[in-house]
Amino acid sequence: MSLIVHKYGGTSMGSTERIRNVAKRVAKWARAGHQMVVVPSAMSGETNRLLGLAKELAPERPDTAYYRELDMLAATGEQASSALLAIALQAEGLEAVSYAGWQVPIRTDSAYTKARIDSIDDARVRADLAAGKVVIVTGFQGVDEAGNITTLGRGGSDTSAVAVAAALKADECLIYTDVDGVYTTDPRIVPEARRLHSISFEEMLEMASLGSKVLQIRSVEFAGKYKVPLRVLSSFTPWDIPIEEEARSGTLITFEEDEDMEQAVVSGIAFNRDEAKISVLGVPDKPGIAAQILGAVADANIEVDMIIQNVGKEGRTDFSFTVHRNDYARTMDLLKEKVAPALGAQEVVGDAKICKVSIVGIGMRSHVGVASTMFRSLSEEGINIQMISTSEIKTSVVIDEKYMELAVRALHRAFGLDAE
Amino acid sequence: MSLIVHKYGGTSMGSTERIRNVAKRVAKWARAGHQMVVVPSAMSGETNRLLGLAKELAPERPDTAYYRELDMLAATGEQASSALLAIALQAEGLEAVSYAGWQVPIRTDSAYTKARIDSIDDARVRADLAAGKVVIVTGFQGVDEAGNITTLGRGGSDTSAVAVAAALKADECLIYTDVDGVYTTDPRIVPEARRLHSISFEEMLEMASLGSKVLQIRSVEFAGKYKVPLRVLSSFTPWDIPIEEEARSGTLITFEEDEDMEQAVVSGIAFNRDEAKISVLGVPDKPGIAAQILGAVADANIEVDMIIQNVGKEGRTDFSFTVHRNDYARTMDLLKEKVAPALGAQEVVGDAKICKVSIVGIGMRSHVGVASTMFRSLSEEGINIQMISTSEIKTSVVIDEKYMELAVRALHRAFGLDAE
Repeated sequence: MSLIVHKYGGTSMGSTERIRNVAKRVAKWARAGHQMVVVPSAMSGETNRLLGLAKELAPERPDTAYYRELDMLAATGEQASSALLAIALQAEGLEAVSYAGWQVPIRTDSAYTKARIDSIDDARVRADLAAGKVVIVTGFQGVDEAGNITTLGRGGSDTSAVAVAAALKADECLIYTDVDGVYTTDPRIVPEARRLHSISFEEMLEMASLGSKVLQIRSVEFAGKYKVPLRVLSSFTPWDIPIEEEARSGTLITFEEDEDMEQAVVSGIAFNRDEAKISVLGVPDKPGIAAQILGAVADANIEVDMIIQNVGKEGRTDFSFTVHRNDYARTMDLLKEKVAPALGAQEVVGDAKICKVSIVGIGMRSHVGVASTMFRSLSEEGINIQMISTSEIKTSVVIDEKYMELAVRALHRAFGLDAE
Repeated sequence: MSLIVHKYGGTSMGSTERIRNVAKRVAKWARAGHQMVVVPSAMSGETNRLLGLAKELAPERPDTAYYRELDMLAATGEQASSALLAIALQAEGLEAVSYAGWQVPIRTDSAYTKARIDSIDDARVRADLAAGKVVIVTGFQGVDEAGNITTLGRGGSDTSAVAVAAALKADECLIYTDVDGVYTTDPRIVPEARRLHSISFEEMLEMASLGSKVLQIRSVEFAGKYKVPLRVLSSFTPWDIPIEEEARSGTLITFEEDEDMEQAVVSGIAFNRDEAKISVLGVPDKPGIAAQILGAVADANIEVDMIIQNVGKEGRTDFSFTVHRNDYARTMDLLKEKVAPALGAQEVVGDAKICKVSIVGIGMRSHVGVASTMFRSLSEEGINIQMISTSEIKTSVVIDEKYMELAVRALHRAFGLDAE
């Protein structure tokens, strides 16, 4: 007998028919003798509907009292779907009970709309599991020390599920979603993309942070911190496939680099086109330049991703970085009007039509020449590299947006990821 | 400065535009210097939508675990509208905060879907009021001793509002609804019906229990028990009418029979056609008959309204009572198959096509001949009276359903209730 946590996304909970399917699937696992905890998201569209009503009433504004009410509002979507799933499980003949975040309780800080989990009390859930019940823990939400409802941010139900699995020391946390696992890259771009049977936690973290949208990045961080075995799999397989088959499907996120792992040098290709690049040219090359530029950007609450500073010559250097495309115009204004004049920089140039393409793989640690293979295959396609950034297990390049698909396909092939 | 509780029904909260109007009205009261607590219902249609989803998943069944989940589900509707109202009030420039039932907390028993309020902790609300905030208390819901969410049954937000007003010793509880007060009878039946400026608590209780649907009967009982001054008024007057005018509008439910009260003998005519009558004929006239008949009915969980037993003759008597029309067939079966044979009764007859018409008035205490005026005016219209039941301040008759409108109009005129 194992203790298993299932998490179902909004699409999987999108209608009463789908909720009934979820209930049948959970019932299959419970009948196989497993202790079951289920974390459902709100029915798809519900969170947007609720927040849409709020927007009709008042423009969004950075105000704690306002964010508190947004959380009161948004938290109702998950509470409703949890109760509905409990009812569906009862209709399957199981004993089932649902708990809102505050009932568990799942304790968080008070950062409304993006709260972080501090602790989870497992007593109530354990008592129910011991009594043979399926326990539904409402995702996406918690309660702060003063008893206010908080939410964990978009995709927060992934984090709820992993945190609950960690608190209960679950044997495995299964994230059911509308894709059937983690792929070497997006199959919509590269039809030859393969599903990975397993991926290391560190690779998954890079994939998530680089734009692969299978899992919320904080849930991966959480899984890493507490060593929660995590599996991403599809909720659209028939609910009655054999449990052994289901338990091996999808992609397992592992924490041990054991012998059995796929030994590819590069595990996947990630990409995103949400960024824009900005360069401050001809900056006097002296200590404190980076701090002055990025300090001003941070003060304006703009997040920076890649940062590049090249060696200078003739007493001047160029400084480049990327920001989210939504912040591009604002950042350019800030630099041109305030930062560059103060620094005595020669020019500020930028480009919003870029994309970032990354290769990710634990094998890069022990294999030389991986980056150069990447650069060569891009060059063979005639793609100019604008920026390069590396870490231990990934290499990212910024290129012209129009070459994105071409680059991803070329790299997928170059690193032997195409399905045979 | 007064402490005022406002309650807004589902229709008043039915769209973001209406929620904005509610916020403007509450803001007007707050700016006039009053401490404001607001209890909103779910947006109209929302509770039905949620319970409809539950019904798609499982047929309703009398099961505590199931009812618990229904309450988890239904409670989300009010929580969402409370948060939306807080956001709308903030947009009006007021400080506002919303609390779910468990956050106040409003403590109830564990009778899911029809829980009763045990106590309300006023500390949190009082602290916010003292800090100048408008406090929104989510209606319809509470929390039991074990921390489960409970709901108070249909119309329960009225009861929440009155209970909160009682706990806070509010100066007045204003129930905003889609009618502009309590009428002498339903204006859809009698166009000459008049709005009452005030009505005594006891009369309101009779009107509510006799089918007048302005207020949930438990909220009236609660108001009576704790002497909460209650006013029923319209949420569809323009929000910016002068506050003095608004404070005098609608119908005040009073607890003192003071000189100023309207001195009509009869205050209103109530009616309903939700009942059916059943007679057990030729029952042996001996002690314990009523207990045997009604005991069997109560054991089947069927509620009985009017009960009539006439003096017997020749050792036999007839016993009649009314039940809700939905329970008619079930009650007839029970009596015919089990009760009548066991009692040695001669016959069981019934009629579902009846209605009950009642006159209500505190003046009946001190005026003689009120009932006979009622019977005479019905007789003048050729309406046969099938059953009669009286209490201190009301007289009810059961008549053929088809005469209902005729009877109500005749009585309205006979007791001088028609508007001049």
